[in-house]
Amino acid sequence: MERFDIAIIGTGPAGLSAAVTAKIRNKKVLLLGSRDLSQKLGKAHEIQNYLGFPAVAGAELAAAFRRHIDQMGIQITEKRINAVYAMGDYFALQSGDEMLEASAVILATGVVQGKPLPGEEELLGKGVSYCATCDAPLYRGKTAAVIGYGPREESEAAFLSEVCREVLYFPAYKEETNLPQGVRVIRERVTGIAEADGKRLVKTDENGYTVDGVFVLREAVAPGQLVPGLATEGSHVQVDRKMAASIPGVFACGDIVGTPYQYIKAAGEGNIAALSAVAYLDEMKRNQG
Amino acid sequence: MERFDIAIIGTGPAGLSAAVTAKIRNKKVLLLGSRDLSQKLGKAHEIQNYLGFPAVAGAELAAAFRRHIDQMGIQITEKRINAVYAMGDYFALQSGDEMLEASAVILATGVVQGKPLPGEEELLGKGVSYCATCDAPLYRGKTAAVIGYGPREESEAAFLSEVCREVLYFPAYKEETNLPQGVRVIRERVTGIAEADGKRLVKTDENGYTVDGVFVLREAVAPGQLVPGLATEGSHVQVDRKMAASIPGVFACGDIVGTPYQYIKAAGEGNIAALSAVAYLDEMKRNQG
Repeated sequence: MERFDIAIIGTGPAGLSAAVTAKIRNKKVLLLGSRDLSQKLGKAHEIQNYLGFPAVAGAELAAAFRRHIDQMGIQITEKRINAVYAMGDYFALQSGDEMLEASAVILATGVVQGKPLPGEEELLGKGVSYCATCDAPLYRGKTAAVIGYGPREESEAAFLSEVCREVLYFPAYKEETNLPQGVRVIRERVTGIAEADGKRLVKTDENGYTVDGVFVLREAVAPGQLVPGLATEGSHVQVDRKMAASIPGVFACGDIVGTPYQYIKAAGEGNIAALSAVAYLDEMKRNQG
Repeated sequence: MERFDIAIIGTGPAGLSAAVTAKIRNKKVLLLGSRDLSQKLGKAHEIQNYLGFPAVAGAELAAAFRRHIDQMGIQITEKRINAVYAMGDYFALQSGDEMLEASAVILATGVVQGKPLPGEEELLGKGVSYCATCDAPLYRGKTAAVIGYGPREESEAAFLSEVCREVLYFPAYKEETNLPQGVRVIRERVTGIAEADGKRLVKTDENGYTVDGVFVLREAVAPGQLVPGLATEGSHVQVDRKMAASIPGVFACGDIVGTPYQYIKAAGEGNIAALSAVAYLDEMKRNQG
């Protein structure tokens, strides 16, 4: 299998900055995330403190970032990573039923907004899942609920509707949905998930819906779930000033490592994380040679 | 005396980024440094990894930074700070024979390149000085040597030549010098400073020159000399991840806090330092109120 030097998860300012610096250092980079870059950045009305771009619209700054990576020939691989496993001298990245490999990993997935839903963590793996691609087969011919935190999650719901008998979709956002007929859109606020008679109950502020499985799909996954065994502080990854996380070979940057949640801070940390990953790879090579 | 909320020392990417964010947070900012911004930045041939500016010339990036601060109405005060003293609830900044005041200080002066000269630290205050404006009167009618690490130091040598009987200038750079007739330019590499018969001896790889006083003028002053009592690690200021230094109210960012010496890293840290200084000021206000 192709092994990359550095896998970078996330295409916000932190991930892009890390990719640019890793590429300059001639590393084989796998940049994973959305080609639309960060949703948060694209929607930002005006950013005043990204030095060099006075009073810039988020979309305009995102376009400048895209030009930068395009000009350097950096590709974005549009795959969602569900888990990262430390395998000794490399990392296995699970994307649905596919595995990818890299010698070092940089986490730049942003921060999970808000708390988990009541019951979500307790039922994870027991009827609650974060990955439609992985767990859809479990619900073939059954009913599933999808709680989607952004329009991007609609494609997951559409995919599930090809497998499941019925799919209920709870959009946790205001935008219009664009879903196939087989998906029933329910515009109610989800307040929690529970078990009821061996099935799952999605509770809203108005009703309760009984289903076989519940998919909770957010833009970012909590870092402790993404990388089992990683030291975290609340929703943040613990890092030192070199952006090294608790597992050797894992680095993190941007909102995922903590406040302030600022674009220029994220870009600066991406640069540090990339150079630290390069130093880690060089050291590994020296020890093997 | 006018008291600023935040004094920022240094006009490289770290200092400018700090100024931009502090200004957005409505703080009264004193930004100290050269209006030409960082010499290092302006001379950089091409910068590839300042996210948003692919393959940009240093001068072009500096121009974008200048437009940013101009558009926000941020002024640069062109004063050299010789020392910063913690006075309890504020800081006194010495600039020649003038004193300035601020409630918090952000150090963004870059890193001192290279080691001190042999004898330099031992003779500091005993014939060796870092500040022509401060100590010129001591050498009225006497002889002085100036070891200048950049063309900007020539104005200090010119000033000394108005006061001293003779000024020897040792340029530690390749550019042509532009100095008044009273200054004797010696193109020899200085190897150390010593005492000899109550006078100072400037040793070069070719000769020795006996003078009354020696001025060693670098773009950046070692942080421990700039802020007495500040915890340092070699030529770097010790900071935590919030960019707070060992003295409450003092923050630092950019090359002065350590490697990697990168523009985007410096700008990111400037943002963090500014927000930490704002939090410090808010906390101070709450405790007084």
